Amino acid sequence: MKAVVLTQKNAVEFSELPDPQTKNPEDVKVQLNAVSLCETDAKILDGSIPTKKHPIVIGHEGAGVVVDVGKDVKNTARGDKVLIDPNIYDTTCYACRDGFSNLCLSGGLMGREVDGVFQQFMIVPSRNVFLLPRNIPAEVAPLIQPFSTVVHGHRQVQINPGDVVVVLGLGVVGLMLAQLAKLRGAKVVGVDIVPAKLELARKLGIDVTLNSLEADPEPEVRSLTDGHGVDVAIEAAGVPDLIRKAMQMLRRKGTLLQFGISPKEVTYNMYDAYMKELVIQATRSSLPQDFEDAIRIVSQGKIDLNYQISKVFKFEEAKEAINFFHDRAKALKVIIKT
Amino acid sequence: MKAVVLTQKNAVEFSELPDPQTKNPEDVKVQLNAVSLCETDAKILDGSIPTKKHPIVIGHEGAGVVVDVGKDVKNTARGDKVLIDPNIYDTTCYACRDGFSNLCLSGGLMGREVDGVFQQFMIVPSRNVFLLPRNIPAEVAPLIQPFSTVVHGHRQVQINPGDVVVVLGLGVVGLMLAQLAKLRGAKVVGVDIVPAKLELARKLGIDVTLNSLEADPEPEVRSLTDGHGVDVAIEAAGVPDLIRKAMQMLRRKGTLLQFGISPKEVTYNMYDAYMKELVIQATRSSLPQDFEDAIRIVSQGKIDLNYQISKVFKFEEAKEAINFFHDRAKALKVIIKT
Amino acid sequence: MKAVVLTQKNAVEFSELPDPQTKNPEDVKVQLNAVSLCETDAKILDGSIPTKKHPIVIGHEGAGVVVDVGKDVKNTARGDKVLIDPNIYDTTCYACRDGFSNLCLSGGLMGREVDGVFQQFMIVPSRNVFLLPRNIPAEVAPLIQPFSTVVHGHRQVQINPGDVVVVLGLGVVGLMLAQLAKLRGAKVVGVDIVPAKLELARKLGIDVTLNSLEADPEPEVRSLTDGHGVDVAIEAAGVPDLIRKAMQMLRRKGTLLQFGISPKEVTYNMYDAYMKELVIQATRSSLPQDFEDAIRIVSQGKIDLNYQISKVFKFEEAKEAINFFHDRAKALKVIIKT
Amino acid sequence: MKAVVLTQKNAVEFSELPDPQTKNPEDVKVQLNAVSLCETDAKILDGSIPTKKHPIVIGHEGAGVVVDVGKDVKNTARGDKVLIDPNIYDTTCYACRDGFSNLCLSGGLMGREVDGVFQQFMIVPSRNVFLLPRNIPAEVAPLIQPFSTVVHGHRQVQINPGDVVVVLGLGVVGLMLAQLAKLRGAKVVGVDIVPAKLELARKLGIDVTLNSLEADPEPEVRSLTDGHGVDVAIEAAGVPDLIRKAMQMLRRKGTLLQFGISPKEVTYNMYDAYMKELVIQATRSSLPQDFEDAIRIVSQGKIDLNYQISKVFKFEEAKEAINFFHDRAKALKVIIKT
Repeated sequence: MKAVVLTQKNAVEFSELPDPQTKNPEDVKVQLNAVSLCETDAKILDGSIPTKKHPIVIGHEGAGVVVDVGKDVKNTARGDKVLIDPNIYDTTCYACRDGFSNLCLSGGLMGREVDGVFQQFMIVPSRNVFLLPRNIPAEVAPLIQPFSTVVHGHRQVQINPGDVVVVLGLGVVGLMLAQLAKLRGAKVVGVDIVPAKLELARKLGIDVTLNSLEADPEPEVRSLTDGHGVDVAIEAAGVPDLIRKAMQMLRRKGTLLQFGISPKEVTYNMYDAYMKELVIQATRSSLPQDFEDAIRIVSQGKIDLNYQISKVFKFEEAKEAINFFHDRAKALKVIIKT
Repeated sequence: MKAVVLTQKNAVEFSELPDPQTKNPEDVKVQLNAVSLCETDAKILDGSIPTKKHPIVIGHEGAGVVVDVGKDVKNTARGDKVLIDPNIYDTTCYACRDGFSNLCLSGGLMGREVDGVFQQFMIVPSRNVFLLPRNIPAEVAPLIQPFSTVVHGHRQVQINPGDVVVVLGLGVVGLMLAQLAKLRGAKVVGVDIVPAKLELARKLGIDVTLNSLEADPEPEVRSLTDGHGVDVAIEAAGVPDLIRKAMQMLRRKGTLLQFGISPKEVTYNMYDAYMKELVIQATRSSLPQDFEDAIRIVSQGKIDLNYQISKVFKFEEAKEAINFFHDRAKALKVIIKT
Repeated sequence: MKAVVLTQKNAVEFSELPDPQTKNPEDVKVQLNAVSLCETDAKILDGSIPTKKHPIVIGHEGAGVVVDVGKDVKNTARGDKVLIDPNIYDTTCYACRDGFSNLCLSGGLMGREVDGVFQQFMIVPSRNVFLLPRNIPAEVAPLIQPFSTVVHGHRQVQINPGDVVVVLGLGVVGLMLAQLAKLRGAKVVGVDIVPAKLELARKLGIDVTLNSLEADPEPEVRSLTDGHGVDVAIEAAGVPDLIRKAMQMLRRKGTLLQFGISPKEVTYNMYDAYMKELVIQATRSSLPQDFEDAIRIVSQGKIDLNYQISKVFKFEEAKEAINFFHDRAKALKVIIKT
Repeated sequence: MKAVVLTQKNAVEFSELPDPQTKNPEDVKVQLNAVSLCETDAKILDGSIPTKKHPIVIGHEGAGVVVDVGKDVKNTARGDKVLIDPNIYDTTCYACRDGFSNLCLSGGLMGREVDGVFQQFMIVPSRNVFLLPRNIPAEVAPLIQPFSTVVHGHRQVQINPGDVVVVLGLGVVGLMLAQLAKLRGAKVVGVDIVPAKLELARKLGIDVTLNSLEADPEPEVRSLTDGHGVDVAIEAAGVPDLIRKAMQMLRRKGTLLQFGISPKEVTYNMYDAYMKELVIQATRSSLPQDFEDAIRIVSQGKIDLNYQISKVFKFEEAKEAINFFHDRAKALKVIIKT
């Protein structure tokens, strides 16, 4: 069986691994059909996010077909098309028990702590496998994993129809956040500095797009809301200064969703938070229920993920795919058919 | 009619004012029985919080007896003992309409934007008057106003019995926050640097008290929670560094309540908030429903506010009361019987 | 000034009334532009819902232009287009103070407890007046009042994108409930027994429509949801047996919204509610925040209310309009331009 | 190894079973220390609740010591004192994935679907084992299982300090529901028809106790709440008529918790629910987070469960214990030390 492994930073190779077999009663064997790469993978490849071992099979976005199941598996059977949840969790720590397996104390990610999805076959616990309806194309399926984190972020905040939501940062994930806000009935304002992203946002139906290089977006956002400010502001770029900016854009009793990930320090003014009685809400990864909802939303045709697919490669071309992905000017996402 | 007015900063005088009369159909005339002073009043007196006019009748904590009502008043009648809600709000801005009159766009405070409670009689709209059950002593009644802000802060956060809650800062308000956490079934840890406050906290039944001058409280807080961290951390001192400290003390999916007021900048790490999927929740002032709950809690004997009363003065002694209150080493709160 | 009054049941007359003047500082004088009739009005007209007095100006759905304001009015000024909130509430009972003015202990409705909107001018407190954006046509404005009750009903239940929601009963209000569910990202199933209503539902974009006279809708609803049942079921017909039916259609942890109004008895099985850990949630009227949201949604063009307008009459034709409305086969709603 | 098995209805025997061994990597072997019986067990014993197999080891309330663990077990180790969660769930159905393993589609109960806790040793998945702090006595530990269902019920409803809560039915579980309401800061009214239960409620600190045989409790409940009605009413007897009664006792926007289990039909009036905008909330079993909270509450000494222990038996006396328990006049709960 072939797999794409990272032997050390910046060194990706094809490797021949033994065909894995189910062992535990809740094991599922999946033949991968399509996998994709994201920003986190790029950081794992260049070593800025360390892996737990070397060599490691890369990738955490993948979907395939079930080819074998352990005797206690109830949620799937041979022949099912499935999406893989790459989150490792133990089900028994306090976070898992409180319903937050995304925060598991001994949690991890496929492709970082354990072998990932860039292989022809893999064994996963049945709880990491989600049934895919037939109407979801193979090359779209892996994209549902990052979309599940968007669903999770949205779950943290209340949005009512008619609300105005601003999304700061319109990358692959920002565009999904904006689309989902619209799907929840909000009027959505997207802010970025790259004209092509703003153009794409408009194509995806985002109501208002603002280039923050051209003008401070805050006055415009305020005028769109009778001077009150937005109901929800989503920071989707991982830039601390945008947190501060987002707080200024919020109306009284507004909510700030910290979606972007950064190791940096944020500074905000206590009095500003007090005056508007604001909430700053962080979000991390996704839960099984987010996968369920994400699959339903995609299957119902309520969200467009196709715009993300810059190019589809064959499994043999995985290295070319990685190079193509590295050149971010060209690529939003690449899909590799396994 | 006599009133205590601030003519300019640091200048308090007794003044003779005309006896006010009800005019609008929803007006209520109250004869004040007891008033008290808080930290905000101290800042108004010394000018660090500016008032909207001079001279101004000071004070926003007060209770009394209804002596006259306009024809449309439904919630009270002559002879009723009432607490005064000092919050001015218009009922028609978007914040009021969304249920957040505490954030009213044209909101204000008695004793700061309009005349306050340090007078023998005053006219207030009926919505600023709350019925007091007979079993609440006159000198305790004014203290229910600051307690209502504590109830409001608690309303922002979920606390389940068995939760561990840490309160950072055990001043008059911190002690109420801690007591209310205990009343909600939590195990409560109180942190301060003043031995007398920690001693008082113990007397009031706070489970664990820690002097943060003696040792960093975080390891102790962690060990009290099986190493996980607390469910809820309440910053009650208005010190930015305590926000950071509170975030470290929180368990995954924990909530930080920013209760303390400060014009200062807070710095936190985005990654820390992300890893634990934290919430930072601000709180401001109180709502009518908080007054209702605060009165019920006090009337049911579920909270001890008496510890706050350092000394009771007569109305004629208002200036001595203010001086006594300024000397904070001696006084938590002073009550002035009008 | 002309007004349409009900002198006794089934007796509607034009009446000449004195031009009303603002008196209290928070009064607003509105010149009505358009009013409409609903099911409740029909019952008031035929006496099955009693009014508090006779004669009474009828109607509770109306919009107009502000022509005068009292000195303390902050939310509107002469010349503003406004919607009227017909709910009377005192702001000082426990329900109002808890944020539920829709449940006010001394609450009432214009056109039932006090004079209504079928007059050329009227005085209302400023809190009963909501600013209308310019892009909302005069004849649509009155329909926002019933829509606000739909917004209120939806506020009681959580709906996530991808959820499946069933609406039982597709009258004027049922169709708004269904549209709003769709606007929140749900897949919506509409059930009725009248082919024309089902046809209209399809035109309005409802995903699945089922005629419950042709077949029991439950198996079909179940098959649409992988056999699990729907996330939310909304009873919108006021038929007790549909409550029972709705409970059967729900998935585990599902929510039943009791929107339809009926004086009848509902029977449900305790064990069924237990097994699925269901919630039955009632809803009543609407709150100021519902008006705000309803106006925003209509102004953003996110909902179609025009389908409701069967015919537009002149104010002089009010009696013809009422007759036309009584003949429900022809009319969903009638608009009367005043 | 000895076990107490039900061979057919009303036929309990001691049986010699093979000492069980861990097999799966997440298995835990527990040596039982103490077990207890509840109402459900009584119904299983007399056949009114059928079991999935015969013979079956009875019992679902039990605690013990870990004597062996599989290689992937993270939450416990040899020598730990543990409580057993008797709920079987698959972690992969939609209910489990949505965070409601208590509603698992293939769920079951130890002692009913699979062998229970009345044996000297048993194998359970690690997710069914909860660590017990040292300060919880062995004979109290099994009682935490039913208490976890009380915690779960309470989790469904919001209770604020100062609220008034009525509990209808003061059996073993009703008394825990009442105590927990008090622990959350509520004023609690308990209603029953058995003087001894009302006496016990008073001893446990319930604020007001009413014998509904002596007088209709509704007027008294209403007068305790200024005529408004209670914030939360909990039906804890499984009597449909009490649901109706509870609805009458509720204030506007109140919540009814349907805790009692019954196969019977409830009848309520749609208009009553509408007028007060009520919620009827069912509850079922408990979740892992409820076990965590229940253990914390007991360990913090915040609830008294000892009153339940009528008598402690040795394991050899299990049959006498069952007979003693059957004679409910004498026994609330019996503990069997294994």
